[in-house]
Amino acid sequence: CPTSSLRAALTLKDTLQLKNKYLTPELENAMENWFRVRMQVHKAILSRDFALESQGGSVISTRCSETYRSRSACVTFYGFPLWYQSESPRRVIQGDPVLLPGKCWAFPGEQGTLFISLSHPVSITHVTLDHLPRYKAPLGSINSAPKDFEVFGMNNENEAGTLLGKFTYDQDGEPIQTFKLPSQSAIHHFVELRVLTNWGQNEYTCLYRFRVHGKVAST
Amino acid sequence: CPTSSLRAALTLKDTLQLKNKYLTPELENAMENWFRVRMQVHKAILSRDFALESQGGSVISTRCSETYRSRSACVTFYGFPLWYQSESPRRVIQGDPVLLPGKCWAFPGEQGTLFISLSHPVSITHVTLDHLPRYKAPLGSINSAPKDFEVFGMNNENEAGTLLGKFTYDQDGEPIQTFKLPSQSAIHHFVELRVLTNWGQNEYTCLYRFRVHGKVAST
Amino acid sequence: CPTSSLRAALTLKDTLQLKNKYLTPELENAMENWFRVRMQVHKAILSRDFALESQGGSVISTRCSETYRSRSACVTFYGFPLWYQSESPRRVIQGDPVLLPGKCWAFPGEQGTLFISLSHPVSITHVTLDHLPRYKAPLGSINSAPKDFEVFGMNNENEAGTLLGKFTYDQDGEPIQTFKLPSQSAIHHFVELRVLTNWGQNEYTCLYRFRVHGKVAST
Repeated sequence: CPTSSLRAALTLKDTLQLKNKYLTPELENAMENWFRVRMQVHKAILSRDFALESQGGSVISTRCSETYRSRSACVTFYGFPLWYQSESPRRVIQGDPVLLPGKCWAFPGEQGTLFISLSHPVSITHVTLDHLPRYKAPLGSINSAPKDFEVFGMNNENEAGTLLGKFTYDQDGEPIQTFKLPSQSAIHHFVELRVLTNWGQNEYTCLYRFRVHGKVAST
Repeated sequence: CPTSSLRAALTLKDTLQLKNKYLTPELENAMENWFRVRMQVHKAILSRDFALESQGGSVISTRCSETYRSRSACVTFYGFPLWYQSESPRRVIQGDPVLLPGKCWAFPGEQGTLFISLSHPVSITHVTLDHLPRYKAPLGSINSAPKDFEVFGMNNENEAGTLLGKFTYDQDGEPIQTFKLPSQSAIHHFVELRVLTNWGQNEYTCLYRFRVHGKVAST
Repeated sequence: CPTSSLRAALTLKDTLQLKNKYLTPELENAMENWFRVRMQVHKAILSRDFALESQGGSVISTRCSETYRSRSACVTFYGFPLWYQSESPRRVIQGDPVLLPGKCWAFPGEQGTLFISLSHPVSITHVTLDHLPRYKAPLGSINSAPKDFEVFGMNNENEAGTLLGKFTYDQDGEPIQTFKLPSQSAIHHFVELRVLTNWGQNEYTCLYRFRVHGKVAST
């Protein structure tokens, strides 16, 4: 809301005036500009998600990974079982604004694959993996979170693909973790996410959201 | 969360004590009261949306406007096309808390109409148009956003209607733009939104959300 | 976003340095630690909701309470009535991130019951009732909000149950109100919410969200 921004701006200015007595006005201006550009670039890249279904992305295949169906999550209504709740792999690219426990795609074991057609051909710079925050998990554990995973880029469905990077989701980190590729990739139409290990859950691994960031081919 | 409010309140108070040494306590009190009332009135009016479907609003008709169907947004699942994704005009009044690219009603060209039955008869004071923030748009452009539009008030479906105002959505402004009517309208049961131009997209125009604010007849 | 947290942290620190000149560093450290632990415990308990459907909770029955169907909330599309909008009792445990007016389970009169199977057997410590904020209600009134209600714990569907507490939702309070049980309950698999009165609406009472907090049996 505007008031709190105003407050923050006022106090930030006062704080800087107190703290920056050793910075020349010129240096301060230069720092201010650098910071503004730095934040804009960051926002411009990480706010766009080229895997997002509403934008035209789609899950083409999960290769050999099946969807894990848990009998315990059976939803009943007035005493009758309605369905055994299981989310489709499309959940991972649907961009729900709030993650709720169980609203994820689960696959059995710890190795699983998601092959995604991007909404636009992009030169990939970052990927993001979201998982339920530990403090929202009913047992306080997120051992079904992915741990090590690889990301591949392809330009057709049958290609072997180029390894873009191997990353580790940290179960003790922030729920939304962004990973920078070692180098910006070539233009790709497809991305494959391969989860290699999880944080200790033997039966299944859960994927809440996967995002692909980068620069569109033509720009 | 309570901590950050507390922090903001503490620092605001300190800041004001530093800055307001030329304001008498009486003047400061008067300003404080004025500001509180000002913000409450603002919030009371703009937080209510009489077009909202869950509250009883409905899209009666789109006149001659058809829904634009893009083949490129086709959603496939395991390689088979599932549906050609297109959102109904109801999307515009469903109040989704987060706007995702493509989760909008698109109509062909730049002129389109939405005829809405309000949840309550209201004397209209403001309307709001929401569009996807530019930094979330995959190509960094929101040229499918409405530009010039008119709003009409009616009391039955066949009436010509009263022009309540003509406004311009600014593609460089905030994603949520609220427009004050030149004067508070009479009581209306229906509102028609007529988009006249967009920001340069030749094929289609997208409406993410339209809100109608005002005062209910009986109060 | 990181910037505003940084700002808040900077200004908080400065504020504390200005204000805390009468606190010894040792005392300040002790207070800081106490506060951090206090906030973590709070978050750890209240962030978990064992009624949540996505997590495995379910509405087993509403006993004798029927769903209130209002003709006025009929949704029409292109002039034809589509359905008489009414939400199922499952809405109460689905954890929608934003409350919209009408997106609630309504039952006729002011007495209603919801019998919920929890996702895990828990020793209950708190319950939370959410209602639409008054400033979002179209008429500025939330007289359909529950007022007095009781919560019972059970271990099977036919048991009479143990009264865990009787509470009052305050129509002038925050939209999300959490109630601490007089004492931490035994382990329960089921919870029954019994609304006894509302804030003055004669025809129906609305339940937006009900949450059950506590400690899982095995931990």
